[in-house]
Amino acid sequence: MPHLIIGVMGPGETATAADCANAERVGEAIAEHGWVALTGGRPIGVMEAALRGARRRDGLTIGVLPDTTPDTATPDAGIRIVTGLGEARNFINVLTSDVMCVCGMSAGTASEVALALKVGRPTILIAPAAVSEQFWRPLGGDALYVAATVEEAVQLIERFARRPSIGD
Amino acid sequence: MPHLIIGVMGPGETATAADCANAERVGEAIAEHGWVALTGGRPIGVMEAALRGARRRDGLTIGVLPDTTPDTATPDAGIRIVTGLGEARNFINVLTSDVMCVCGMSAGTASEVALALKVGRPTILIAPAAVSEQFWRPLGGDALYVAATVEEAVQLIERFARRPSIGD
Amino acid sequence: MPHLIIGVMGPGETATAADCANAERVGEAIAEHGWVALTGGRPIGVMEAALRGARRRDGLTIGVLPDTTPDTATPDAGIRIVTGLGEARNFINVLTSDVMCVCGMSAGTASEVALALKVGRPTILIAPAAVSEQFWRPLGGDALYVAATVEEAVQLIERFARRPSIGD
Amino acid sequence: MPHLIIGVMGPGETATAADCANAERVGEAIAEHGWVALTGGRPIGVMEAALRGARRRDGLTIGVLPDTTPDTATPDAGIRIVTGLGEARNFINVLTSDVMCVCGMSAGTASEVALALKVGRPTILIAPAAVSEQFWRPLGGDALYVAATVEEAVQLIERFARRPSIGD
Repeated sequence: MPHLIIGVMGPGETATAADCANAERVGEAIAEHGWVALTGGRPIGVMEAALRGARRRDGLTIGVLPDTTPDTATPDAGIRIVTGLGEARNFINVLTSDVMCVCGMSAGTASEVALALKVGRPTILIAPAAVSEQFWRPLGGDALYVAATVEEAVQLIERFARRPSIGD
Repeated sequence: MPHLIIGVMGPGETATAADCANAERVGEAIAEHGWVALTGGRPIGVMEAALRGARRRDGLTIGVLPDTTPDTATPDAGIRIVTGLGEARNFINVLTSDVMCVCGMSAGTASEVALALKVGRPTILIAPAAVSEQFWRPLGGDALYVAATVEEAVQLIERFARRPSIGD
Repeated sequence: MPHLIIGVMGPGETATAADCANAERVGEAIAEHGWVALTGGRPIGVMEAALRGARRRDGLTIGVLPDTTPDTATPDAGIRIVTGLGEARNFINVLTSDVMCVCGMSAGTASEVALALKVGRPTILIAPAAVSEQFWRPLGGDALYVAATVEEAVQLIERFARRPSIGD
Repeated sequence: MPHLIIGVMGPGETATAADCANAERVGEAIAEHGWVALTGGRPIGVMEAALRGARRRDGLTIGVLPDTTPDTATPDAGIRIVTGLGEARNFINVLTSDVMCVCGMSAGTASEVALALKVGRPTILIAPAAVSEQFWRPLGGDALYVAATVEEAVQLIERFARRPSIGD
């Protein structure tokens, strides 16, 4: 059985404390369910927090790196996918995630939400700002979900995980 | 002297008549100024309209295609960059544009605006919806511009074109 | 500690029985050493054989897929990296591998060997044809290794694995 | 009518004087025929020489750059495609070229020849080393051509240019 991969996306340098706290708890929940946590892999913000949470619960973790070497990864990235693609690696984050959770918003994060909605990957905004929900709602089709809390987000992922195939 | 390349981004299948009309007029203005028009190159929506406008004024046009063959390009794409990268080619659209004009909004377009703001490429939203401006403004730093009309957008591009180097 | 990732590259449709037998035994050895096996993930040839060998020994396996969905992966790919990049995903195979083993030769395989040598990733040709060794030798600098047998290749990987950092 | 794009590939830092002389003459011939010359765009070796030759004859030139800015291009690259993809941009060089000419050999060049043969793009090795021809011949299928001189290569391109569609 292939692993179910849950992406956790959000700001790096501009992440708030709340974004990181949510990401860390999502990371923990991902590991507790036996899923794999995936982020952009850099040692900062939501990327770092989510993988730290998952590793604390002994989960398998993936960092998809923009650089040409694995050396820039956060230490909690167990599997380091080295793309050399710069920001274009965001597209791989999206496609590789069976479900995508979003904690906070930045230009980079917006590129991932946009691509996920474009290809119809289930995308859960966790406690988004009102303007963020208003902006994405008409662009999101059936792929956009909003969760008020981490717990709600995890319940949504559990529902997706029971489907015979993500996307059905 | 290298050519100044102006990207025109916007919805494909979901473009409105106003989006396409704006794109076509921007395309004409690009050609009249001797600049090069660049879009995602598919034969639909804003991509198609902008290149049609530029070709009507005998401008040089570039279509950056998602596919592995040039055969899917709109006929007005004079130079067909074949990427085989799918939606990840959006990143090349952004990086190759010295200035980026945006007519309308969709998930794909949002990915391009997001990446442009991420890397600081000057990005002009033409007659955007209020929620669009509200969403992008705090993410855009100094790279985001809003133009009420095509004419305003062209004046902005003229200003960028006089700089010794775009980005200065 | 991040996982050590060993890539196994070789022909798909045109793989010989010997190529696949070597790939399968390399895959087994990778898993027995606690390393991670990585291939291009499609259900054919060397890609399929190496992951099958690694899974038989309960190893962790990665398939880096050219497509936009995970559904095209060989069942033995435990972690399915979905790139949507077509053949350009070969570059990710190369960069993500701490060491690359090569079983057989094809146009696709040659692109991976070439990129690995370009970026200096240690690359082990296993039982190569004479012309293959003659062609790559002058292009390979210090990154090219030739192993007469799978056992020799595994001994080489063990040596790399003891280094503080691959590439040192 | 879309422009016919002829790629000229070959070593950068390790190009020989003969490689560069051939590339420059191919570039001149491309421009004289009204075709567009494409290279990897960096200011060195075959990339630089081919675009210099094409510009001397007032041809349109394209440089497909590995970096995230156009500033690293050779001055003779009129259109600078900025990919940010590093060596993965080689795949775009290949796909965008209707026909590919190869002057000399290096690891980077080998990656382009390999990808071209993989996707069946017509590829002309100009005055190759014997081992190079021997290596590529069995991998090349119908896409591989060898020309003893620049003149022979240009005659081959002329033949391709008369086809209703490259690849037919």
